[in-house]
Order: sequence, then structure tokens, then C-alpha cells
Amino acid sequence: MDMDMVYAAQKRLQPYLFMTPLLYSPLLNRQLKKHVWLKLETQLPTGTFKPRPAFNSILSHLDEAHIHGIIACSSGNFAQGVAYAAHELGISAIIVMAKTASPYKIERTRSLGAEVILHGDTYQESVVYTMQLQKETKRVLIEPYDSIETVAGDATIGVELSKQLGEKLDNDVTILVAASGGGLLAGVAFALKNLHPSCKIIGIQPKNNGSMAESFNARKCVRASNPKPSIADALGAPIPGEIPFNIIRDYVDDVVLVTEEELQFATNFFLEQHKLVVEPSGASPVAALFANKIAAKNVICITSGGNIPLQIGR
Amino acid sequence: MDMDMVYAAQKRLQPYLFMTPLLYSPLLNRQLKKHVWLKLETQLPTGTFKPRPAFNSILSHLDEAHIHGIIACSSGNFAQGVAYAAHELGISAIIVMAKTASPYKIERTRSLGAEVILHGDTYQESVVYTMQLQKETKRVLIEPYDSIETVAGDATIGVELSKQLGEKLDNDVTILVAASGGGLLAGVAFALKNLHPSCKIIGIQPKNNGSMAESFNARKCVRASNPKPSIADALGAPIPGEIPFNIIRDYVDDVVLVTEEELQFATNFFLEQHKLVVEPSGASPVAALFANKIAAKNVICITSGGNIPLQIGR
Repeated sequence: MDMDMVYAAQKRLQPYLFMTPLLYSPLLNRQLKKHVWLKLETQLPTGTFKPRPAFNSILSHLDEAHIHGIIACSSGNFAQGVAYAAHELGISAIIVMAKTASPYKIERTRSLGAEVILHGDTYQESVVYTMQLQKETKRVLIEPYDSIETVAGDATIGVELSKQLGEKLDNDVTILVAASGGGLLAGVAFALKNLHPSCKIIGIQPKNNGSMAESFNARKCVRASNPKPSIADALGAPIPGEIPFNIIRDYVDDVVLVTEEELQFATNFFLEQHKLVVEPSGASPVAALFANKIAAKNVICITSGGNIPLQIGR
Repeated sequence: MDMDMVYAAQKRLQPYLFMTPLLYSPLLNRQLKKHVWLKLETQLPTGTFKPRPAFNSILSHLDEAHIHGIIACSSGNFAQGVAYAAHELGISAIIVMAKTASPYKIERTRSLGAEVILHGDTYQESVVYTMQLQKETKRVLIEPYDSIETVAGDATIGVELSKQLGEKLDNDVTILVAASGGGLLAGVAFALKNLHPSCKIIGIQPKNNGSMAESFNARKCVRASNPKPSIADALGAPIPGEIPFNIIRDYVDDVVLVTEEELQFATNFFLEQHKLVVEPSGASPVAALFANKIAAKNVICITSGGNIPLQIGR
């Protein structure tokens, strides 16, 4: 992986995706006595950063994808990103999701025009079925995190941040990124450490699924020792991807865990106080801030997704 | 009223409030084939534009307010703005709200440290009680819309837009503003028509309470002929204020009505698709756009408030 691949990804995405806004938060400044910027990936189509890796992956194999179609497996947000990108590019898409995936995310994926197949009780079981189906159908497999194209697509966030904040990024800035399979964390870390070597990158993961934190400490990919379900349903990868993990091991400064209560608090904070719809995974960086787990004074939170079902009360 | 008053208001607010973000919306561009910018007043403390008029009004009578305290009457959002500003300035605040006000907004006002008195079944009844209490207590009355200080505070939105978009505002831009008592509409219209005479200003009001539209057509303040409750509970003024109306009559190009269904659609759109928490009153400009009631191609929507109670579903 090199920066040319990241710039190539950026060029591929340009006709399809706008640069996402970077919001300075006076509210978080007031409450936390820190300078906090929110990179609002929720403003991309489908409400998360996932169209970046989806477009980059499909566009990198466009001819084959036109002939055979594509196939992907996802807990929900990548599913929507892939369905959206495939629809935009006129490509047939099959998305395999576990039967236990969020009904809200299943419905949103279907509404984007993809064929959704529900299979298996866990993400792992749906992955196995996806591999089998891929062999039968010869569809192009689009990886949620464990491919160079995915990481390069995610890395375009780092290039945008560099444009938006410029040399401020050379002056004691820490970037907080949700961690699961590791694509987003690896991509952001790779781009920003190359462009602004002095910045710090910290991964944030639910304590209920600490695979990345355990892998980071072990210096190799390991499964979470005691995984439980988390309200951050987008952060459920059982083990980091090898490709992103090799980048994370070299480029990331730390991985921090947050509890379910901390995730819930941050999600409610966004809805109630900040008036932004952010799902628990996307709120995980702010959860770590409120839990006093981040010492840095200048912080960018990658607000990576906003897919939660909401009802209006009274 | 003159622009010096607006600039004075801007100077008064500066130590307390940040400029709110202006978000270009690729999503609305895609769906409506228009260029749409959202002025995110939801990002101010308390989630609406109301701290602007609240701070400007209190700061304009600061000595008296320190001695006697302040009093205000509100359906909910102004209540929170006043409570917040009073708390910041160390001033005692009584807020009178109708017993029928949104429980969510009552609770939020209380949590900001103001003394909340629930009185009357309608906004009108709570206004009468407020006047009586003001005479007894000599507290400074802070007007939600019918004062120069309020309109000048609201007008700072126009000054910010001028800074943010510059000469683009001279090139066929229409600004959509929710209308009720008229403070916000008058303020934005006054500032922008002075700074960018060629721009267009359109007020948006619920069809269920068309007092501003009827007044605009009659060229004088009249009550709504057949008022009903609206989900846009922040837009319930029974008659425009005289001071803002005199500005609106001269500076506003049109007032457009939206139905309850259109308001609901736009509110849901913000939550589901745009991942922004916006209440029906704040969503009214986008409601008018989706209902094809605005011909303009370049549109700024003043997204004026975001106070709706939300529950997370599954």
C-alpha cells in the first residue's frame, strides 16, 4: 500500500461522493475543555463512510463486476454502501447478512435495490455462506475491511482532513477512529501519518468486542477473548483483517475500549444535545472523550455512521 | 431599526455564541435538483436560534436585569434560549409556559436553571399572565418576537450568511425562513435585503396556523382565520408581532403554507436520510421544497430548531 493508491481512490470517488463536512464543536469544547472537530461521515449517502470503500472496490474491478455482478457480506452499514454504489454504477448486487442483523439496516439495504440474502445466526456464519455463493456465482467479492481497495477507500477520509485542517494537523492533534475489522482505522492512520507524521491515531472499540485492542497488544491478529453483543452493532468483527492490521500495528498509537454505558451516553448526547443522528459505533470516539480516556487537547472524532432507527416521542 | 443595531447585536453575542455552520447538501441536490444550503441553527446551545434574541435582549437591559431579574413567555424554544442566556449571565429568570406546551421543552427549560411557571391552556392565556406577573415583580420582560432587540438578534443570522456565502448571495439566491410571530423572518430579511438587495426571502408557515400568510396578504397584522394545532409547535403565534411585521411587509417576497403531512415528511427525511435532528418548525423550509412550492434553484434553508424528543427503536 502506498499514497498513490489513496490518491487513485480519491480520484475514483470524486464523481460520486462529496467531501464530508468537518464541524468544530463549541458544545464539546464547553463540556470537555478540549478542541473537538467532528468529521461527519453521516452526511454521505446511506449515512456512513461505507460508500468510500464500496465505490473504490467496485470501480477497481469494474469490468468483471459488470459481467458477473458483485457479492458482499455485512452487518449492515457496508451492505448499504455496497448496495448504493452498485445501484449507481448499474451493477447487480447480492448482499448476505446474518439473520440477527439489525432489521433497520436490512430494510435500508433492500430499499437501495440490492438482493439481500439472510443466512446464519452470526456474522461469521454469513461470511462462510458468502464465500460458497461467490464460488458458485463468480460474482466479484467486495471486502468490508480486509482488502487494499477497502483500506485505500477509507483512507480518503485522511486526505480530506488534511485539506480541511492543513498544518493544524502538525500541531498536536489526535484522531479517534472506531475499530472493528480495522479498515477505517488503518485507512485513516495510513493517510494521516504519511501526510502529518506528528499526529496521533487512536482506535476506539467496544469493550464487549475487544478483538482489535487484544490484537494490538499481542502484535498479531487474535479473536476477542470474551466477545458479547454490543449496541455498536457495526463494530462486530470477530478478528481484525490481516491487511488493515499490518498497517494498524505500524501506524496506530493506541486502541482504547469503551463500555456499553459509555456508548449509550454518547449516542444520547448526540441526539439530545448536539442534534446529530449518530449510531453507537459512530459515537464511540465521543464516548471515549466523555469517559476521560483520551488525554489529548485537540481531537478529531471520525463520526463514522448514523444508522439508528428513531421514533418521535412527546 | 438599522444595520448598526444588527452589528451591535452581533458584537454583543460574540463572547457567547459561535457562528453556526452552513452545510451544503449533496443529498438535497440529488433529490430536488436544486442547490440547497442548510444554516444549522440547531448547533447553537439549546438546539435552536433562540439564544441570539435572548442574549441580545438581556444584554441590552443588563443593569436592570441584574437588579430585578427577567421574565419571558414562550411555547418552549425561546424559553430555553432565555433560560440559557440568563444562566450564563448570572441573572434570575422566570419563564411562563402554557400547560399545553411540549413536556419535552418544559423539562429542558427547567434543566437550564430557570423557574418555570405553567399557566393557561393556550399561549395567549400564558401571555396575559406573564404581563400581570411582570407588573408585580418589575422583572425585565424579554419579548419572543415583538421587539427591536429580538429582531436585531435574529438578524445576526443574515450577517453570518453574508460572511459565509459572500457574493454568491447576489446571484439568484432564495432564503426560506419559518414564520410565526415573525422575529426570525423579519431579522433575516432585514439583514440580507440590506446586504444583498437582489436575494429573495420567503416565509414558511404551517397551514394550520396561517396568521403570517393572511397578514402578509392583508398588508396588516391579522389573526389566523381558522387556527388548529400543528406538529410545528414552535410556530404557534396567534398573530404576528407589529414590529417584525412592519419589516416583513416591506422586505419579504412571499409567505408559503405547508401542511402537517409535508412537515412530518421533512422531519422524517432529516432523521432518516440526512442524519440531522430537526424539529418540524425547523424542517418547514425543506417541507416547502419537497412539496414543490419553491421554484428557486439556489436555496438557503434556515434550519432553525431541533428540539424533538426521540426514542431509539430497533
